Amino acid sequence: MGKVPRILSWRNMLVLSLAVNFSLILRILKGTDGGNSSYVVSIWPVVSNSLDRTVYGDSKWPVVSTTASGSSSLSSASCTYNETQEDDHRIINLKLGDPMVYERYWQEMGHMTTMVIAGWQSLSYFSDNNNELCWFLEPELAKEIVRVHKVVGNAVTQDRYIVVGTGSTQLYQAALYALSPHDDSGPINVVSAAPYYCSYPLITDCLKSGLYRWGGDAKTYKEEGQYIELVTSPNNPDGILRESVVNRSEGILIHDLAYYWPQYTPITSIADHDVMLFTASKSTGHAGMRIGWALVKDKETAKKMTEYIELNTIGVSKVSQLRVAKVLKAVSDSCGNETAKSFFEHSYDAMFERWKLLKQASKTTKGFTVPDFASQRCNFLGKAFEPQPAFAWLKCEEGIVDCEKFLREKKNILTKSGKYFGDDLSYVRVSMLDRDSIFNTFIHRISSSFNSTL
Amino acid sequence: MGKVPRILSWRNMLVLSLAVNFSLILRILKGTDGGNSSYVVSIWPVVSNSLDRTVYGDSKWPVVSTTASGSSSLSSASCTYNETQEDDHRIINLKLGDPMVYERYWQEMGHMTTMVIAGWQSLSYFSDNNNELCWFLEPELAKEIVRVHKVVGNAVTQDRYIVVGTGSTQLYQAALYALSPHDDSGPINVVSAAPYYCSYPLITDCLKSGLYRWGGDAKTYKEEGQYIELVTSPNNPDGILRESVVNRSEGILIHDLAYYWPQYTPITSIADHDVMLFTASKSTGHAGMRIGWALVKDKETAKKMTEYIELNTIGVSKVSQLRVAKVLKAVSDSCGNETAKSFFEHSYDAMFERWKLLKQASKTTKGFTVPDFASQRCNFLGKAFEPQPAFAWLKCEEGIVDCEKFLREKKNILTKSGKYFGDDLSYVRVSMLDRDSIFNTFIHRISSSFNSTL
Repeated sequence: MGKVPRILSWRNMLVLSLAVNFSLILRILKGTDGGNSSYVVSIWPVVSNSLDRTVYGDSKWPVVSTTASGSSSLSSASCTYNETQEDDHRIINLKLGDPMVYERYWQEMGHMTTMVIAGWQSLSYFSDNNNELCWFLEPELAKEIVRVHKVVGNAVTQDRYIVVGTGSTQLYQAALYALSPHDDSGPINVVSAAPYYCSYPLITDCLKSGLYRWGGDAKTYKEEGQYIELVTSPNNPDGILRESVVNRSEGILIHDLAYYWPQYTPITSIADHDVMLFTASKSTGHAGMRIGWALVKDKETAKKMTEYIELNTIGVSKVSQLRVAKVLKAVSDSCGNETAKSFFEHSYDAMFERWKLLKQASKTTKGFTVPDFASQRCNFLGKAFEPQPAFAWLKCEEGIVDCEKFLREKKNILTKSGKYFGDDLSYVRVSMLDRDSIFNTFIHRISSSFNSTL
Repeated sequence: MGKVPRILSWRNMLVLSLAVNFSLILRILKGTDGGNSSYVVSIWPVVSNSLDRTVYGDSKWPVVSTTASGSSSLSSASCTYNETQEDDHRIINLKLGDPMVYERYWQEMGHMTTMVIAGWQSLSYFSDNNNELCWFLEPELAKEIVRVHKVVGNAVTQDRYIVVGTGSTQLYQAALYALSPHDDSGPINVVSAAPYYCSYPLITDCLKSGLYRWGGDAKTYKEEGQYIELVTSPNNPDGILRESVVNRSEGILIHDLAYYWPQYTPITSIADHDVMLFTASKSTGHAGMRIGWALVKDKETAKKMTEYIELNTIGVSKVSQLRVAKVLKAVSDSCGNETAKSFFEHSYDAMFERWKLLKQASKTTKGFTVPDFASQRCNFLGKAFEPQPAFAWLKCEEGIVDCEKFLREKKNILTKSGKYFGDDLSYVRVSMLDRDSIFNTFIHRISSSFNSTL
């Protein structure tokens, strides 16, 4: 096993220790944190993507009221909207799935995952000389990936090769590189059933690759020969659990299971597919680390995926890998604690409350609908529930043709239009993962009248 | 300016402080580090690339003898080879430029760059909502990039856009994406003068892009129309300072300046080109962080480069960026300290000693040659010296046709053949950046007879 170098002189440790103590004393003297369990709103600004950016601060937003959880000091997910200082002209941006809903959990529980990184750590390109395949995979991360899947029961890891990537986006491209024929047969078609993840077509076609090309909606795909089908389950944008739809013997499948975690959907079976993609961004909320992983059945495929990541970025940030390893360990540890709620129970509660509010708003206004989901038993949480996805696939009613335009112009809410997902303009995708204050403002605004002439 | 969230309860800090103190006490009790300035050899294994891997440990390698530097407690770079426990059958791998030569500096000085990362930090995808262009660039990293270039005087930063990447490899691809025509004119040729960096052709052609394709040696390039020329200066593999060679008005230039730092080459002028690529891997030795940066003159080019990195990996690890920001700060700070040697002076000394030993070995055996360099005045170090590159471009003499094969079979030294760099088999590229023990073994082996029938 490759190990992280462990040499640090006691003098170095002393310097660090003194620095920490000094900071601690300063904070106590300043009295900036009285040690109560109230939730402090971060000043970190939330932005949209670079093409359509709207900046706002949290300081003037309504304060979220939280109630204490019975089993731990962590604030529960119950959010009551306080109508204070609301400004309907401020734009809120729910186009992207920035997972800030997890911030509160990690602020209160994250001391278990605090990391100290010395300046001489992680100099080398290499992580594990015993891994004949993915030489840039940190052994500690590999161990925690296997463990968390065992704990949750959402994917087979035995006899699987793990390939780490700079987010699952890079792994998607690695899988395309690995699974496309490299002969002169021309680009293979890549398809996915609409509504599909809006970035798939863009990523697939951005370099006009001769290996693969976007082939559109899998439901209407008719071409002969080999093809690659992407199965996103639960699906982004609509949260539906999916299987392949083309179902021909020439099909090569990539399963994107980024959202197959118990806070979003019942874990009904242990996923067992050829290529399965996961990401820290949606499982634990650590999007800024840019860490994803693939569980791969075939050795040659895993080798080719590794080759792509070598060519594309010569491996993956080691410090991010170690960071995510520690976070996954905390998640798995929390599941074995019988006296307190686990990470997934907390996250489930947060998503449950949000979906409850959204469904209530939908009933009240009748201006929009959200998908109906069937309840299923979750093997991990030991109870039946309806999916509560990371995105709401919202459909405008009341004669509103362009839902994205309506929400933008009439409600100052930015969303992603259905057209980007291979669907029609009456749909939009709305992030359910932003901070409480943003989410509550969203609920408040869509709870009011949907009258429009758009 | 986007700021790292600063909220951490005093309880969390207390837990951390106690953990550090506990670890400190344990270490002192165990007596594992007596606090002297001796260099402790890490057990971290060094491996080659995944295609040709050879594992070895440091434990049986000759111990490097170091002499104390006059101005600080840091061991100097002077390496005297002690012929102890040498095993000529062990394979040493110098194919890749793993920058382990910097480990000793950061082990002894790196406490200044120790980082504490809390579990709730860097959840969001976004780094800087004030940066209208590269939204995933940490402001702290941007600041330290500008500062270190000002301190060293090796590149213009004023009125330049900074794009951060997962290593400069990703930025190279981002630049190709940004600079290639996206119309139907077909792929643009990408050329570089041989010997060129061996990964350029592989990266360029790996996806059979319709935007760009590898066009070979710039010195023999004759095609009409637009082309992209890569100028690596100092050059990988041969360390020569370069300028463009095609010199036609249709040329679009990318300057790879990964090695334009004073430990490798005299800084003779402030580089001022349209697109300049740098990397932490070769400047400070932090390859495992996977951080590179581009200084870009044209806003639209920088925008398109950002777009590529969005599509390819949705940004760059935030914790790696913060880590490199801290390292660059320590480097710049060291340059302002008049009582001790700077990072660059230490690194210069290390490379100087290594090149002295290599040149001596070349004279002794007459079995191989290394390039002759002209001495030039370095504006940063204030003295004239010959380049002392990160790689040696070694040419076998004495009738040896295939230098890579000879060194592998007769000397158990793995190197990269000249054929991968667009040159002939009599050349190999040898890393000058490995640990002292490996480097010394290399010198020892090539100092002996070069008789061969190969």
